Amino acid sequence: MSTATSRRPRITKVAFAAVMRDLVPYVGQLDIRVQKLGFGTISLVMPASRQLLRPGGTITGPAQMALADIAMYGLVMSRLGRVDLAVTTSLSINFLRRPAPAAIVAEGRLLKLGRRLAVGDITLRSQGRAEPIAHAVVTYSLPPAKGLVD
Amino acid sequence: MSTATSRRPRITKVAFAAVMRDLVPYVGQLDIRVQKLGFGTISLVMPASRQLLRPGGTITGPAQMALADIAMYGLVMSRLGRVDLAVTTSLSINFLRRPAPAAIVAEGRLLKLGRRLAVGDITLRSQGRAEPIAHAVVTYSLPPAKGLVD
Amino acid sequence: MSTATSRRPRITKVAFAAVMRDLVPYVGQLDIRVQKLGFGTISLVMPASRQLLRPGGTITGPAQMALADIAMYGLVMSRLGRVDLAVTTSLSINFLRRPAPAAIVAEGRLLKLGRRLAVGDITLRSQGRAEPIAHAVVTYSLPPAKGLVD
Amino acid sequence: MSTATSRRPRITKVAFAAVMRDLVPYVGQLDIRVQKLGFGTISLVMPASRQLLRPGGTITGPAQMALADIAMYGLVMSRLGRVDLAVTTSLSINFLRRPAPAAIVAEGRLLKLGRRLAVGDITLRSQGRAEPIAHAVVTYSLPPAKGLVD
Repeated sequence: MSTATSRRPRITKVAFAAVMRDLVPYVGQLDIRVQKLGFGTISLVMPASRQLLRPGGTITGPAQMALADIAMYGLVMSRLGRVDLAVTTSLSINFLRRPAPAAIVAEGRLLKLGRRLAVGDITLRSQGRAEPIAHAVVTYSLPPAKGLVD
Repeated sequence: MSTATSRRPRITKVAFAAVMRDLVPYVGQLDIRVQKLGFGTISLVMPASRQLLRPGGTITGPAQMALADIAMYGLVMSRLGRVDLAVTTSLSINFLRRPAPAAIVAEGRLLKLGRRLAVGDITLRSQGRAEPIAHAVVTYSLPPAKGLVD
Repeated sequence: MSTATSRRPRITKVAFAAVMRDLVPYVGQLDIRVQKLGFGTISLVMPASRQLLRPGGTITGPAQMALADIAMYGLVMSRLGRVDLAVTTSLSINFLRRPAPAAIVAEGRLLKLGRRLAVGDITLRSQGRAEPIAHAVVTYSLPPAKGLVD
Repeated sequence: MSTATSRRPRITKVAFAAVMRDLVPYVGQLDIRVQKLGFGTISLVMPASRQLLRPGGTITGPAQMALADIAMYGLVMSRLGRVDLAVTTSLSINFLRRPAPAAIVAEGRLLKLGRRLAVGDITLRSQGRAEPIAHAVVTYSLPPAKGLVD
């Protein structure tokens, strides 16, 4: 992937923001914003809101998982363009630290983009903090003829 | 755990339904119902709704993950009673089949309940179907003095 | 999979024992035996040996992971026959309890057998004990034209 | 962890090489070498050998998992010194590409070092190649009074 950074993402920030907002209401309500979108890299921000708080005053795990999952969707589209029918096949997340009741930033990168599967890892941080609050590895299955040659 | 099934759950179905509805609005909106609650076993039902649909006409992954996560919360409370501050430390899910646009049933069982950690696995099925649509393994960290002796 | 149990495995116990012994020396040295082999189910036994002990007097994790991985290989072959080129794409294991310095029994079952991927879960126990010592979920990628229709 | 890189590892390369060689024969036989050892970072090399080959002419998964697991053991000791009784609680690995029949380099870093748990991620590459062949996230449980304050 040495030349990846010099290449343009195959979907714009505006177009992917619309995907997040419109495709699945349960995810769209999170009001996630696109901070950066590269060719195989992504940075998203999920604002804090009262509806995401859980006992202990932190952001609920399911919202963090939704953020990690949609970040991987964006990573796939950053390389392949709109592929709405790409689907998650597995997600594995470790919650590392109690998040502040603040916005969460997700940084993702592709580990592999094959013909049939894409794998990426996503690191979540409370906005403005250095230490990760969660780390996820997500695998997507790609629609036929959309993935690259392995 | 041979005698587990002969023991009473430490939280009632009604009380755990209230936990799901009230503690985290992002999860409460899913309107998940308690079908069965045993001493270390649980069965939950998440109704289908338009807001959970994703492209392809199936139930979005983040809602399935939220269901698996809250099922594990219930498993912990079925053994320890109300422990709102128990938190997820890891969740690993495999999506096995495309769910029907229908209610999803989660069946969970504890694999381990230690002093500091609890581990359970959760199988999701579309209501009325035999094959699993997803399988999750979830780990919770228990508040001090709440877990059992390892 | 309701009729699965009434069908014959597509590889014999003797043939799969030879696979385990001969294909990969690093796994073959574990001297794993086939206890049961069904159509989508498997039971293997790994004898204890001094070379598997780790500090604390228990069986080392890497040997448990090797056992879980080969059990999934057997599950795949129990449905598809010899498919040496099936390869692991992911393995996720939770170590639940300290194993006794004794033989370990692995019980596995298929969660999904698709056209391209197979997923199974494997539970490990110290021989003669009821509680699991580890639980793994393993995914294999199947060679083209060997898997079933999704 | 901003000052971590300026601090000395709490175990020497020579001492950790001895841990790998002596503590568990099943791992010691892999003849893994320590390339670099920092304060929360590690780089190990596992030489190729005939006994690690699997059908398809690549390095078997169980050897890659053993390498990832021991790399995390080293990460923990790089911060806490000799803690032989630290044990793996979970390991999740994705196999991304077919490894060359060559030495494998593991690069690891700590994601979290708490009072009771440490989490790290490990990336494996065939020696001399840029793309990862596998990526693992490993969690260790720390003996009482050895971990840091959360």
